[in-house]
Amino acid sequence: MDAVAAARREVCRLHSELLRWNLVAWTSGNVSARVPGTGLLVIKPSGVGYDELTPESMVVTDLHGAVVEGDHAPSSDTASHAHIYRAMPEVGGVAHTHSGYATAWAARGEAIPCALTAMADEFGADIPVGPFARIGGAEIGEGVVATLAGHRSPAVLMRGHGVFTIGRDAEAAVKAAVMCEDAARTLHFARLHGPVRPLPGADVDALYDRYQNAYGQPDRTREGA
Amino acid sequence: MDAVAAARREVCRLHSELLRWNLVAWTSGNVSARVPGTGLLVIKPSGVGYDELTPESMVVTDLHGAVVEGDHAPSSDTASHAHIYRAMPEVGGVAHTHSGYATAWAARGEAIPCALTAMADEFGADIPVGPFARIGGAEIGEGVVATLAGHRSPAVLMRGHGVFTIGRDAEAAVKAAVMCEDAARTLHFARLHGPVRPLPGADVDALYDRYQNAYGQPDRTREGA
Amino acid sequence: MDAVAAARREVCRLHSELLRWNLVAWTSGNVSARVPGTGLLVIKPSGVGYDELTPESMVVTDLHGAVVEGDHAPSSDTASHAHIYRAMPEVGGVAHTHSGYATAWAARGEAIPCALTAMADEFGADIPVGPFARIGGAEIGEGVVATLAGHRSPAVLMRGHGVFTIGRDAEAAVKAAVMCEDAARTLHFARLHGPVRPLPGADVDALYDRYQNAYGQPDRTREGA
Amino acid sequence: MDAVAAARREVCRLHSELLRWNLVAWTSGNVSARVPGTGLLVIKPSGVGYDELTPESMVVTDLHGAVVEGDHAPSSDTASHAHIYRAMPEVGGVAHTHSGYATAWAARGEAIPCALTAMADEFGADIPVGPFARIGGAEIGEGVVATLAGHRSPAVLMRGHGVFTIGRDAEAAVKAAVMCEDAARTLHFARLHGPVRPLPGADVDALYDRYQNAYGQPDRTREGA
Repeated sequence: MDAVAAARREVCRLHSELLRWNLVAWTSGNVSARVPGTGLLVIKPSGVGYDELTPESMVVTDLHGAVVEGDHAPSSDTASHAHIYRAMPEVGGVAHTHSGYATAWAARGEAIPCALTAMADEFGADIPVGPFARIGGAEIGEGVVATLAGHRSPAVLMRGHGVFTIGRDAEAAVKAAVMCEDAARTLHFARLHGPVRPLPGADVDALYDRYQNAYGQPDRTREGA
Repeated sequence: MDAVAAARREVCRLHSELLRWNLVAWTSGNVSARVPGTGLLVIKPSGVGYDELTPESMVVTDLHGAVVEGDHAPSSDTASHAHIYRAMPEVGGVAHTHSGYATAWAARGEAIPCALTAMADEFGADIPVGPFARIGGAEIGEGVVATLAGHRSPAVLMRGHGVFTIGRDAEAAVKAAVMCEDAARTLHFARLHGPVRPLPGADVDALYDRYQNAYGQPDRTREGA
Repeated sequence: MDAVAAARREVCRLHSELLRWNLVAWTSGNVSARVPGTGLLVIKPSGVGYDELTPESMVVTDLHGAVVEGDHAPSSDTASHAHIYRAMPEVGGVAHTHSGYATAWAARGEAIPCALTAMADEFGADIPVGPFARIGGAEIGEGVVATLAGHRSPAVLMRGHGVFTIGRDAEAAVKAAVMCEDAARTLHFARLHGPVRPLPGADVDALYDRYQNAYGQPDRTREGA
Repeated sequence: MDAVAAARREVCRLHSELLRWNLVAWTSGNVSARVPGTGLLVIKPSGVGYDELTPESMVVTDLHGAVVEGDHAPSSDTASHAHIYRAMPEVGGVAHTHSGYATAWAARGEAIPCALTAMADEFGADIPVGPFARIGGAEIGEGVVATLAGHRSPAVLMRGHGVFTIGRDAEAAVKAAVMCEDAARTLHFARLHGPVRPLPGADVDALYDRYQNAYGQPDRTREGA
C-alpha cells in the first residue's frame, strides 16, 4: 500500500498548488491521481476546506468511484474522474477548477485560441469547449473524454461550469490547470483592445514538439498527457 | 457564557477569511454571529484594523444592537445585523463586504444572472439587488430582509454599497460572500467578450438540490441559509 | 527627539501597508509624516527597496526638503511633500502611489465619481484630478494643494502620474490611498458594463458626516484630513 | 570562481522576485546574469519549479550557450540570452516573463505608449514590439537586439510570446520586467474607458534624464540599460 500512501501525499500537496495559483475559492476544485499498479484512485474529500486537507483525509476509491479507504465522502466529481481513468489509460491525474478567467470562456462556450507561444507549448492547439453537464454523476467525465480524446490539449472548458485537465500524473494535470488559467487571462486582456491572431499551425506544431520533447530536465519524466 | 466565548473566537477567525479571500480593504467589512440559545449577537468593533482583531475585542450586543459586553463601539452596521436576526430566526450569521466585483454589479444595480454551476450550487438563483439605504440605522437590514426573505440566494447586492450575506451560521455567511465575489468576477469577465446565457431553470433546481443535500460530509452540518 | 524616532518607526511601518494592499511596484511610492512640534518631516529614502526599509533608513528633512538627519538621499518627491506641509498646517501625513486602477483614471485625467457609500464615507465627494507636473521639484505639491485646498477629498489623481493623499497623520493618508484604489477599481469594473449613477448629494453629505464623526472608536483620534 | 558563486546566488534570488511580483506561472520565466570578467553567464535550469531553485541548481554556460558548470539542462532560452550578451556588451542581465498584461500587448503586437511618468522614468519611450520567433535557438535574442539596440527602453514585447528585458545587471533587468508589467496593466485599464494621450516628448526626456541621473542613492550603481 506504499503507492496509495504516496498518492495520498501527492494529491494533498497538489491541492495547495490550486490555492497558491489562485485557481479556487473556498472548497471548490479538486485533484485526483490514479494509483499506479492498482485499480484505485485518490481524490479530495467533498466540501472540506483547503486548510483542513491532510494525506489521511484524502479518499481512495475504485475506478467506479466506490470508496475503498477513507473516513470522508469523496468529491462530488468522483464519478467523472473515475470515468476519465477508465476511458483514458494513459491518464494518471485529473484536476478540476472554476478558475475565473478560464471559466469566463466556459460561460460563453468559447474555445481559447492558440495565440501565444506558451499555449503552443503546453496545449499544442486551441483549448476546446466541452458540453454542459449536471454535477454528481459520470456525465461530466463523459464530456471530458469525448472532447479530449485524440486532442493535444490536456484542458477542456466545460460549458457553464469550469476547467478539467488531464495529465500523465496529477502534477501534470495541475500544471495544465495553471497554464490554462494563465492563457485564458492573457488572451482575455489582449482581446479587449483589439483582435488577436492565432499562431500559424506550423509554428504551433514546432513549438509543441520542442516543448514536449526537449524542454525540462532529461532525468525527469516528461509532463503532459 | 461558553457560547459567547465560542462566538467571539469564531467571529474573530472569520474576519481573517475576509482578508484572505480579498473581500475587504483596510477596516471595511464585518461579520456577526447569533449566539445560540441567547438573545445576543457578536460583531466586529467599528473601524478597527484586521490585524488588531482579537476574540476579546469583538462586541456582544442584544438583538436591538445595544452593547452588552465589550470595550469597543460595535460596527456601524450593527443595527442592520440585529434587524436581520430578529426578522429571520433561521439565520445564525451575517457577513458584509464591499468586495470589488460584486460591488461593481451593486453600483449598476444589476443582479448577477445564474449562469454557472457554482452559482446554481450556492445561490440556486440570480443574486438579487436590494435597495439603496444610508449607513448607521436598521434601514440596510430592512432592505436585506425584504430582498432575501423567501429567496434561495443567501447574498444580496445592496445598491451603491456592497454585499450582505446570510447563513445558518457565520461561516456559511462568509462562504456565501466568497462565492458571491467569485461569481461576480467570473461573469464580469465573461460578459466583456459576449453574451452569457443563464442556466436553464431545471438545471439550476437540480444542481441546487444536490449541493444543499448531498455535497460535503454527512457528519457536518449543512451550510447555506 | 523621541517624536522623530516615533515618526521614523511609523513611516517605516506604513510603507509595508503600501505593499500589503498592492499599491506599489518595486521601489515606487512613498509616505511621509510631519513630526509634531517641530518643523521637520520624515520620508522614505529614494530608490530603496521595500524589504530594505528600516526606521533608521528614513530621512528627516526640514519643511523645505533640506536633509537634517539620515544617511540616504530622500525621495524625489520630498520637495512636493514639504510644500504640502507648509501650505496645509492641518496635514500631518502624505502618501503617494502609482496604484494601477487609480492611476488609470489619472492617465485619462478623469475624476472618480462618488457613486459608492464607501466613497461618500472616506472622500465625501468625487476624487478630483490635479495637473500634470514634472517630478523632482515642488510643482507636484503645488498641484496637490491647489486641488485639495477646500475639498473634502483627501486624495487627488495627478494627471499622467498617480495618486497623492493627505491626512491628519500618515496612517490616515495611507488609508486614503488604500480606499482610493479600492474605489477606482470597483468603479472601473462597474462602468465596463453600463452607466453608474453618482449618489445624490444629500446622501453623500449624510454618509460623510456620519463617517467622519461617528465611525470608529470614541477613544481613537478620528482619521481624515 | 567567487564571481560565479555570487552570480548563482543573485540569479537564484532574483527568480523569487518574478514570483513575488506575479510575473510568472509554474516554471515559466527566467533570469540570467553575465559573470563580470569572464565569458560566462548564469541562467535558470529548464522546467524546474520556483520552489526548487537553489544557487547550486543554476547553470553556467559560455556566451554561446554551451554548459560549463551545472547538473541541469539550461533554460530553453539560453541561446537567446547568450546572443544578447554577445551583441550588447553593456548588458549585464536579462529577464524573460510571460507576465499577463504585458503579454496581452504582445499578443496584439502593440507597443505600450509612454503615457505615465513612471514609464518616462524607466523606459524613456514607448515600450516597443519585437518580431515573432520560435523558441529554442538564438532567433528570439536576435529580435531582442534588433529592437532594443539604440532604444532607451530596456523592455521589448516579443510578438505572440512575452517580455524580454535587459539591464546593466540582472536586478535592473528584473526591475524593468516589474515596471513593464505595471505600465502594461495601468494603461490596459486606462484605455478601456477612453483615450490616453502620450506624454509630450520634452516631458519624457526631462523625466528620463532625471530618473537615470538623480533618482536613488548616490552610493548605489545606477540601474537601467
